[in-house]
Amino acid sequence: IETKLPKVGTTIFSVMSHLAVQHKAVNLGQGFPDFEPPQALRDAVSRAMTNGLNQYAPGIGTAALREQIALKTERLYGHKVSPDSDITVTSGATEALFAAIAAVVRAGDEVIVFDPAYDSYEPAIDLQGARAVHIPLTVPSFSIDWQRVRDAITPKTRVILINSPHNPSGAVLSRADLDELADIVRNTPIIVLSDEVYEHIVYDGAEHQSVLRHAELAERSIVVSSFGKTYHCTGWKVGYAVAPAKLSAEFRKVHQYLTFCTFHPAQVAFAEFLASTPEHYLELPAFYQVKRDRFRKLLAPSRLKLLDVPGGYFQLVDYSAIRDEDDLAFCEWLVKEGGVAAIPLTPFYEKAPGTRLVRLCFAKSDATMDAAAERLCKL
Amino acid sequence: IETKLPKVGTTIFSVMSHLAVQHKAVNLGQGFPDFEPPQALRDAVSRAMTNGLNQYAPGIGTAALREQIALKTERLYGHKVSPDSDITVTSGATEALFAAIAAVVRAGDEVIVFDPAYDSYEPAIDLQGARAVHIPLTVPSFSIDWQRVRDAITPKTRVILINSPHNPSGAVLSRADLDELADIVRNTPIIVLSDEVYEHIVYDGAEHQSVLRHAELAERSIVVSSFGKTYHCTGWKVGYAVAPAKLSAEFRKVHQYLTFCTFHPAQVAFAEFLASTPEHYLELPAFYQVKRDRFRKLLAPSRLKLLDVPGGYFQLVDYSAIRDEDDLAFCEWLVKEGGVAAIPLTPFYEKAPGTRLVRLCFAKSDATMDAAAERLCKL
Ligand SMILES: CSCCC(=O)C(=O)O
Ligand SMILES: CSCCC(=O)C(=O)O
Repeated sequence: IETKLPKVGTTIFSVMSHLAVQHKAVNLGQGFPDFEPPQALRDAVSRAMTNGLNQYAPGIGTAALREQIALKTERLYGHKVSPDSDITVTSGATEALFAAIAAVVRAGDEVIVFDPAYDSYEPAIDLQGARAVHIPLTVPSFSIDWQRVRDAITPKTRVILINSPHNPSGAVLSRADLDELADIVRNTPIIVLSDEVYEHIVYDGAEHQSVLRHAELAERSIVVSSFGKTYHCTGWKVGYAVAPAKLSAEFRKVHQYLTFCTFHPAQVAFAEFLASTPEHYLELPAFYQVKRDRFRKLLAPSRLKLLDVPGGYFQLVDYSAIRDEDDLAFCEWLVKEGGVAAIPLTPFYEKAPGTRLVRLCFAKSDATMDAAAERLCKL
Repeated sequence: IETKLPKVGTTIFSVMSHLAVQHKAVNLGQGFPDFEPPQALRDAVSRAMTNGLNQYAPGIGTAALREQIALKTERLYGHKVSPDSDITVTSGATEALFAAIAAVVRAGDEVIVFDPAYDSYEPAIDLQGARAVHIPLTVPSFSIDWQRVRDAITPKTRVILINSPHNPSGAVLSRADLDELADIVRNTPIIVLSDEVYEHIVYDGAEHQSVLRHAELAERSIVVSSFGKTYHCTGWKVGYAVAPAKLSAEFRKVHQYLTFCTFHPAQVAFAEFLASTPEHYLELPAFYQVKRDRFRKLLAPSRLKLLDVPGGYFQLVDYSAIRDEDDLAFCEWLVKEGGVAAIPLTPFYEKAPGTRLVRLCFAKSDATMDAAAERLCKL
């Protein structure tokens, strides 16, 4: 059997998590918290199972959960969406991204992605017989050079895929960025696919510039988010997509045959929890800012250079003062010899730029952070 | 936006479930039990959440669950598979089917499917730029005419997609069928995709003829199953695919970017439950045979003609003595006027054969069955 995805191996997240276990390293690689989702949320899942909500959920998601997502969207972004026609619950953001791409991208199309780009984007594009057009973000701010975007547009451009807060850099888009994007796509058939899974994790009092705040963009966008990052349960796999009715209709056609629906009891639980405890996501920036600041303080004495972190729960560090080798080699050395698993940036680039940066996840308990920092400060 | 799936509307299962609610009908349409998964299984999910298993599972599934699937496969089908390289846990069988098709079917390929065919097959094929080649099953036995399969093979044939026990008919393949299939695919590059989600539900003492029992076929097959039908929890969405290492490697490349992993606590729970309570699936045929026989007895006085049910949990009925109209019209009438939701067969055909058959799900409690039968006997 000849592969359809010649460029794809095992995702770097699985590779590094596997190495972390093998070498008993502190795992700051794959992005997940090492603390628990709220007890009330877990109880709500158990209750839903007890209450007999164990069969298929509606394919588009339970009505109560779509209602809560609509309420949150309006409250946070001032954008009215219809739970019936504009919101679809998915098996995590990964499925939502794949479904969105499969729904609107055709063979021969081009999709603009920004490198470093989350590693699921390109295989999903490739599987449509389409082509990812890579535009590198400007280092070290990881900002978008919009002139490069203008230059990359062709009649084949079908989607521009943005991600803010950005993984792995934590960079966030500004209102001016969204205005630039709107200007570029105006009067074109280009659809914006916006990966906003870290929407609730922005720092220093900043507001997340969701595409849904931008009326003109919202009209032509599919916005993807997930409860995993927000509620500390990356293993529950409940995400969603928000898009205007016509786009949602196409999205749903694919979604219903990709997974049909996701774990029903968790949908019930999220609906209850969002209704009863909206303060949870409102307090998330402060919660993670404490962690970010603590982690940075712990690493200050190290020979790692810390980049700014405007959003998300990853810290990029420059290791060039420690070793002169590419980031893949460094991560391999680090997990084996340094006892810490990190994520290299090379797998997220079409052409690795030779930066000396790796990603560390700080969605960790104090004890984990302390253990990692102790090791990292010894390097 | 022009649709990529012009033939696709909302899946008939969602449509009929929606109508059932709207008309307060007894829902024998969409296939799901109206009774609960074992208490021990639900407790195990709650325990896994308490025990902190709320973050990403390994993308290919937890080691313990893959181990249990391998044990079961060997015990039931005498087929040794490696948990490490041959088994991948998915977000339900739907994802597994989509991932399998996306992994091995290319633009221009042909996939042989047997009508009536489960409605997710063709959209998944279409999205690859490939073509479904439809071969109708022989009515009323719903058996495969292998000469028609031989005649349909072309150099473009990439996959033959079989489904036993068959949905909607309940027909099961025999060892002789598998031998025919093996003979057809021998010395070709054709891959067999075998949908066996009802593997544990066969009647009258028959043995399920899994493709995994057939050494020659197993070598070139992707076998899909699911825990939803077996453990009465269709809404939990845990399925899996078994395939030789090389095929599994391609399958996994797609799966990791489709959903990455599925709900972690349920994986832990299924692993525990399979280890502690294998008798559950061993007793499933008897459990459902009681239901099948009870349902058939209840319907005996009706004007519906009951077809044989060798497997699965659906009863096909011929309604021609009641109304002379196509099955879509009949199902609409039945849900509105008769107070029972059923599933028509037309949506599962490329060319509807004009049979007067609809599908009723008997994975139901006695009370539900009684209520439905009372209404059906009045028609
Ligand atoms: C799906 S595993 C990867 C998790 C993640 O989003 C990350 O680490 O960036
Ligand atoms: C995914 S909803 C359809 C459930 C099912 O398998 C059926 O009713 O045939």
